[in-house]
Amino acid sequence: MVHNDINVVSLAGGVGGAKLAFGLAKCLAPTDLTIIVNTGDDFKHFGLQISPDVDTVCYTLARLANPDTGWGLANETWQVLSALEKLAAPTWFQLGDKDLATHLERTRRLQQGDSLSEITQDFCKKWGVQCKVLPMSNDPVQTLVHTEDNEIISFQEYFVKRNFLPKVRKFEFAGIDQANPTPGLIESILAADLIIFCPSNPFVSIDPILEVRGVRAALENKVIIAVSPIVGGKALKGPAAKMFLELGINPSVMSIADHYKQILTGLVIDTKDADEISNDNHSRIIYYETNAIMKDEDDRIRLACEVIEFGKSILNGEVS
Amino acid sequence: MVHNDINVVSLAGGVGGAKLAFGLAKCLAPTDLTIIVNTGDDFKHFGLQISPDVDTVCYTLARLANPDTGWGLANETWQVLSALEKLAAPTWFQLGDKDLATHLERTRRLQQGDSLSEITQDFCKKWGVQCKVLPMSNDPVQTLVHTEDNEIISFQEYFVKRNFLPKVRKFEFAGIDQANPTPGLIESILAADLIIFCPSNPFVSIDPILEVRGVRAALENKVIIAVSPIVGGKALKGPAAKMFLELGINPSVMSIADHYKQILTGLVIDTKDADEISNDNHSRIIYYETNAIMKDEDDRIRLACEVIEFGKSILNGEVS
Repeated sequence: MVHNDINVVSLAGGVGGAKLAFGLAKCLAPTDLTIIVNTGDDFKHFGLQISPDVDTVCYTLARLANPDTGWGLANETWQVLSALEKLAAPTWFQLGDKDLATHLERTRRLQQGDSLSEITQDFCKKWGVQCKVLPMSNDPVQTLVHTEDNEIISFQEYFVKRNFLPKVRKFEFAGIDQANPTPGLIESILAADLIIFCPSNPFVSIDPILEVRGVRAALENKVIIAVSPIVGGKALKGPAAKMFLELGINPSVMSIADHYKQILTGLVIDTKDADEISNDNHSRIIYYETNAIMKDEDDRIRLACEVIEFGKSILNGEVS
Repeated sequence: MVHNDINVVSLAGGVGGAKLAFGLAKCLAPTDLTIIVNTGDDFKHFGLQISPDVDTVCYTLARLANPDTGWGLANETWQVLSALEKLAAPTWFQLGDKDLATHLERTRRLQQGDSLSEITQDFCKKWGVQCKVLPMSNDPVQTLVHTEDNEIISFQEYFVKRNFLPKVRKFEFAGIDQANPTPGLIESILAADLIIFCPSNPFVSIDPILEVRGVRAALENKVIIAVSPIVGGKALKGPAAKMFLELGINPSVMSIADHYKQILTGLVIDTKDADEISNDNHSRIIYYETNAIMKDEDDRIRLACEVIEFGKSILNGEVS
């Protein structure tokens, strides 16, 4: 399956991003793929350090993820959660028993002074993940959602506890100015032939990564392809379309193009959005239409390989 | 079963102490029993705040304890621990799934500003424990074991991780000078008719409690009965006898009497140690012989009721 001699850095958030990352890992040699993962969703819960997006990406790459939800582990058990329930403890965040071991060991190692990126690398080794997975920063960054009701809530509270019901007004990445990029992250981008934004939420998955110090500068002059997380005016998963609407923007592939317009080279969209392209009469973005929905592993691999081929054709000057 | 109109404060550590505490709870009205529990064994593990003795006492009182081990929960599962093992995380401390929920919720509530005693009280309410269980302090106290090899190790490392193999030289209760007694603790002692030291390790279970500020002063002029944790020269459980030997003291009921001689009124010993009493020709301690081994719940209740009767006979001046 590995047949591409091209070095790729991809940016990913949670479930949707992880699916494409899985595909990319099948289309590229492990040394040719670095996945930079959002950590703005990270939070402390019950004293444990939880990195939802990093875990989702790693579990998915390792084929350990729960195939029904996309997050958490397959064949999970819920002994701890049901005991927490009996104690009337908060159970809004679904802590599976096996998943809990990840959080416990991560927390232990962070407290003994290891960095999130070192720990992630070791976990990947144990789980058989061969490509490089880099949390965007080892320093704390907290995505805060400012709501229409002038509340400021953490992303997990917004997303999980409140089921993304509050209307968003803006996003804030607390700590981002003090957050250093993970060691090797900027170098990975600089060394990459192609940058791929996975079909993750632009506001809360990709933007935090772009805001990490040095990332935008490193991306200058790079060939960057995004895979649209919006298909047919809807988000494939999660609140992306709802967020666009609440921010007064029509959710469409054009709003994705517009969101990234300053840096994007190419945008992969679903064929059902092909008509939209005619609306773009000002950007230099190159479009590629395909079936952008990943229903199974074959879809992930097919889409990933298509995205890579699209990138290669741009790099080779075959499309413009 | 409840037939004693006497107010009791008992001091307890882990498994042995918890057994007698269970018996006392059956012999006394809930409002007539306060159990003060050692917290010197408390430690942080995987970022969680663990209070082994408090849990053992509460689980035992609630009839939730694992009957085979005396610690941990009955019908426990080990999903998290086996997942930790796969991550090559430390597994020397046996974290059961249900038990873990206790540590998680305790940690969460401590971090939100609740005190250990408040949390313990709420857990007791949920578990149906009616008597008052007071951790000795809400402030951190850490029992440190100084070994013959001049190591200084935490109690859990000594006791669990190293299976109490290191030879002890002395004990230190780090933080004890700054530790305040739990709110209500001194008042409980002052209001008590009778103080009972459960058959817990004198060095690492009872002594830490006695060293909490104000406890020794409150115990002055109180009728205090200890139940010997040494029977036939051996500790009923744990390293008490081994500790005595390593400190150059013959482990016997007389060494228990000697250890507490400045404050003790009465000592309950096993009949097989009856001959030892003749060795005591200098203290004013009153002895009571019985079957001091608690094999089942009936034993716990029988022994507890006997200890209370012994205490009453001292209070009534019937023995001296």
